[in-house]
Amino acid sequence: MHDLAHSIEFQMSLLLFVALAGYLLSSRIGQPAVVGQILVGLAIGPSVLGWVTYTEFVSSIAHLGAVILLFVVGLEFKLKDIASLKYLVIGLLGVIVPWIGGYFLALAYDFEHHRAVIIGVALTATSIAITADTLREMGKLSSPVAKAIIGAAVIDDVLALAALSIANEMATGTVSVLSSGLILLKAILFLGIGALLGKYLLSRLVTRIDESAMAIKYPDMVFIFAMMVAFFYGMSAEIIGLSAIVGAFVAGVSLEGVGLKNSKSFKEGAEYLRIIFASVFFVSLGVLADVRAMTWELMGFVLVITLVAIVTKLVGCGLPAKALGMNWRDSTVLGFGMVPRGEVAMIVALIALNQGVIDQPAYVALVLMALLTTIITPLVLRNLLLK
Amino acid sequence: MHDLAHSIEFQMSLLLFVALAGYLLSSRIGQPAVVGQILVGLAIGPSVLGWVTYTEFVSSIAHLGAVILLFVVGLEFKLKDIASLKYLVIGLLGVIVPWIGGYFLALAYDFEHHRAVIIGVALTATSIAITADTLREMGKLSSPVAKAIIGAAVIDDVLALAALSIANEMATGTVSVLSSGLILLKAILFLGIGALLGKYLLSRLVTRIDESAMAIKYPDMVFIFAMMVAFFYGMSAEIIGLSAIVGAFVAGVSLEGVGLKNSKSFKEGAEYLRIIFASVFFVSLGVLADVRAMTWELMGFVLVITLVAIVTKLVGCGLPAKALGMNWRDSTVLGFGMVPRGEVAMIVALIALNQGVIDQPAYVALVLMALLTTIITPLVLRNLLLK
Repeated sequence: MHDLAHSIEFQMSLLLFVALAGYLLSSRIGQPAVVGQILVGLAIGPSVLGWVTYTEFVSSIAHLGAVILLFVVGLEFKLKDIASLKYLVIGLLGVIVPWIGGYFLALAYDFEHHRAVIIGVALTATSIAITADTLREMGKLSSPVAKAIIGAAVIDDVLALAALSIANEMATGTVSVLSSGLILLKAILFLGIGALLGKYLLSRLVTRIDESAMAIKYPDMVFIFAMMVAFFYGMSAEIIGLSAIVGAFVAGVSLEGVGLKNSKSFKEGAEYLRIIFASVFFVSLGVLADVRAMTWELMGFVLVITLVAIVTKLVGCGLPAKALGMNWRDSTVLGFGMVPRGEVAMIVALIALNQGVIDQPAYVALVLMALLTTIITPLVLRNLLLK
Repeated sequence: MHDLAHSIEFQMSLLLFVALAGYLLSSRIGQPAVVGQILVGLAIGPSVLGWVTYTEFVSSIAHLGAVILLFVVGLEFKLKDIASLKYLVIGLLGVIVPWIGGYFLALAYDFEHHRAVIIGVALTATSIAITADTLREMGKLSSPVAKAIIGAAVIDDVLALAALSIANEMATGTVSVLSSGLILLKAILFLGIGALLGKYLLSRLVTRIDESAMAIKYPDMVFIFAMMVAFFYGMSAEIIGLSAIVGAFVAGVSLEGVGLKNSKSFKEGAEYLRIIFASVFFVSLGVLADVRAMTWELMGFVLVITLVAIVTKLVGCGLPAKALGMNWRDSTVLGFGMVPRGEVAMIVALIALNQGVIDQPAYVALVLMALLTTIITPLVLRNLLLK
């Protein structure tokens, strides 16, 4: 018999057990399920109890969870809700302001220029997953401010990943206005072409399959097709250097509103997949953060960078939103909705660590910043939205 | 960017694409989806096109698929439908006859005694997954003969895994009647305790969660709980040396018939998970079989052992069924329903290969026997059932 701790059944049952414990904790402290799941994940991870390590399998399942979650979120959005100049302005400033803020903070802490650039990048990308899930759980996904948050966060993610590519080129000293522009152009083209292709080709293909004689015999086909599109878009986004979850989101948006006659509902199916896999994803965010590398000196930096992360999004996204006609409450909700850095910042930090651009303490600081902004956001959002 | 071929999105979208191609092929040749999926899996695997290799990730997802599939199948079965002396007799003879048949065939092909024992074991275990899925797709899961097949196949699987443990002890020369009896006892206790615990404790816990105030707030909890039970039972089965899928099946049987008021249906949820993950599982069975190691000499052995695999199940299960009062058609359906060896035989062969008990050609022969019996069964069953 193979090693129990690496048995898939052991890991799945433990992760789901932990997810349930997260629900209990969340219910006890009156907060969204996400918060409880990350906290319980932290408790069972290597930092504290050490019951679960971030194995290849946990990583794969969490990865599936993030993709499925964003696909489900995308299914709630109409294309025209996102394509807006307003969101472009908010998303753009939501990248530039945290980038500059993080850069100067890092310089103040004696980091060299090119290290400061990448620390700034880690502050740029919003983790749509956390905010979207909080909004989903509160039934607020269809409110105008939710649409603005998601719209801006998608643009913001695309720009942040472009910023990562630019920062990488800076580190190797080959950056130019031309190459930066090229990265941005690829990103915008992907969004545009992906959405149009989905809307006018893939959606029609779904209808075509559903109305064929095969769908009556095999009602499962459309669901498999829809999930294939989600992963294919995720893969395509990765190929051109974006995050897979951005691709999955675009896939969801593309397939939104397709009606079915004979087949099982892919919307319902994706929702069930989300229940299991997004739970594992949120638990894994807690497991991933190993806080044992913590020192007292580092703590100060963590708190300051977290504060900068929050303030720069409030300023970079909230103020433009107000200037573009939103009221103060909605602008604050939007600003805070953009605060969580979650897995995106963790991934940026990991890439920088692997490339030797930042060292272990800076890495831990960025991971903790991501975690803190992730835990704070649902708490604040919930209170703001319940007012 | 990491290697595309190992990207999770790439593998998932390709596997789902292949699953869809399997549907198209099945529809074209008028056979169940499983057959098409295995054949297309074979085509894209290392044997032919080499598009997909059996990576750790594919293996994990396929493993999840097998567990989820048997859980879904279990949800269709009442406990009292399976606990039958009749099925015990059929299951027992369905293990003994193929074991003896395989043993003597291997001796005739000049295999040594302890190698022949394990080759015999590879012929014992029925892959319930294939037959159950064929029956499920044809809407015949609730027919009496289907119940008999599944009931006998579960017992047969338990006994086959006990046989594997006994054969392993034979190879190391420490087997005794006492230790063989102990393995069997553990298996029977697991089935009994697992089913009773599920029926009288876990089912009530599900009802309790569903009726609590938390279920209204978090309707996802019951589904997560049910899947946790499925994986936990799978893990428990593995710990005592049975196959995880037997555990998942018992979990399904235990939770059968639990009604819900406030929560999302775990039965529906598990069914949606099955659509995606069982497809990947069936495709992976094709990918796993690398037929490049094939020689002309081996071909003869493969054909003979496949024939023995078929005949011994027809005789070992079909004849007792007839003797116990079934008509000829149902007895034949039952006998053929027990023919597919699928993943169970492949796992036995893999374990034997890793322990050095059999060599590469014998391994390939067993894998091909498993594949052939797996492909033949749905074809024959379908024709028998359509009569």
